[in-house]
Amino acid sequence: MALKLKYYYDIMSQPSRALLIFLNVAKIPYENCPVALRKGEQFDDEYKSINRFQKVPCIIHNDFKLSESVAIFRYLMREYKIPDHWYPKDSKVRAKVDEYLEWQHINTRLACARYFQAIWLKPKMGQTVSENEVNESKFYMEYVLDLFENIWLQDGNKFITGNEITVADLLAACEIEQTKVTGYNACEGRPKLQKYLETVRAETNPFYDEAHKLIYKLTPKSKL
Amino acid sequence: MALKLKYYYDIMSQPSRALLIFLNVAKIPYENCPVALRKGEQFDDEYKSINRFQKVPCIIHNDFKLSESVAIFRYLMREYKIPDHWYPKDSKVRAKVDEYLEWQHINTRLACARYFQAIWLKPKMGQTVSENEVNESKFYMEYVLDLFENIWLQDGNKFITGNEITVADLLAACEIEQTKVTGYNACEGRPKLQKYLETVRAETNPFYDEAHKLIYKLTPKSKL
Repeated sequence: MALKLKYYYDIMSQPSRALLIFLNVAKIPYENCPVALRKGEQFDDEYKSINRFQKVPCIIHNDFKLSESVAIFRYLMREYKIPDHWYPKDSKVRAKVDEYLEWQHINTRLACARYFQAIWLKPKMGQTVSENEVNESKFYMEYVLDLFENIWLQDGNKFITGNEITVADLLAACEIEQTKVTGYNACEGRPKLQKYLETVRAETNPFYDEAHKLIYKLTPKSKL
Repeated sequence: MALKLKYYYDIMSQPSRALLIFLNVAKIPYENCPVALRKGEQFDDEYKSINRFQKVPCIIHNDFKLSESVAIFRYLMREYKIPDHWYPKDSKVRAKVDEYLEWQHINTRLACARYFQAIWLKPKMGQTVSENEVNESKFYMEYVLDLFENIWLQDGNKFITGNEITVADLLAACEIEQTKVTGYNACEGRPKLQKYLETVRAETNPFYDEAHKLIYKLTPKSKL
């Protein structure tokens, strides 16, 4: 029987890893469809017909195509039988998960991705990065990581919205993990964040480590 | 009887206007709580206790505090009796609305807001804006507006996800309207966008025009 869910992703994409961990933890059967960003496969015509925005991740469920990781999470929660804690039905708890999911776009997501691109990806691709870009991206990321430590984790809960893991935690952790590749230690001076990342990892292993295999490999040894 | 929903907003904030139009169109009773960004009221301690991120919009529903416009839209759809078309229950149609709601953060939202800030807001506040910042913000916004015209509006539907208006349309239209203040005409060379904005406006008036009163006033006459 052909699997009805096709998952298109690259493990160097943070939201791709978050969804990959989720599919495995939640035991959702899927067809593995890697898209190698390093080879520019997202720009191929074939992939353009799958995701008109030429980005990862995306899914095809039966014939239904969907991009945007947060939209995909919500869709999967409706289409499959998934433990409620991942995206709680309780209106107020769900609203708090939503609050993080929306907040993260121009905060954790944009800030960590920009720093990663300025320090690691662009130089790797032979692009020149100005001192100004490096400094600005670091300043912005540290500001956001401090908000994460001091606001989102201030209540002493195990996870962002309480003591049960949600999809918000997967997106947050995968975003922050990626910055390690640059040699930056996001946990230094942020004890709540350190404990938090360890908790998300423990809760979702072995899938968390599997998804982060390449990230760990690329991280300078002193920072592991 | 005290109204149970308090709405904190500023009409110069694009997502604030989108929610304001929605509250009025959907006839949700609310207590009007303007927060004057031009006076820095979002930084007052009193407001910080209402929204820990010190931004607008946000709500207090009974004692429940919530920020992030998209999370607020979803919460209101659960808590009030609202016509289904605004955020359809059908899983696939909802997924398409979600896809735009998530896509817009670092596209329509960020691009239009940045251009508005570079061309209008920062100079107004006495800040120097480099030629590079002006050019980059314009390039990015035009790239996004072209995606909006050529991808989101390509199917010939009246609205982003079909022929019925959704919350995605409110957020999109309010974001694009704001750029008019800079003297930029987003509709020039984008006929689908022009027709689209007219349709969203007609569908939500008189509330659309009421919410955009200040935007229209600040827009150079030749661009109206």
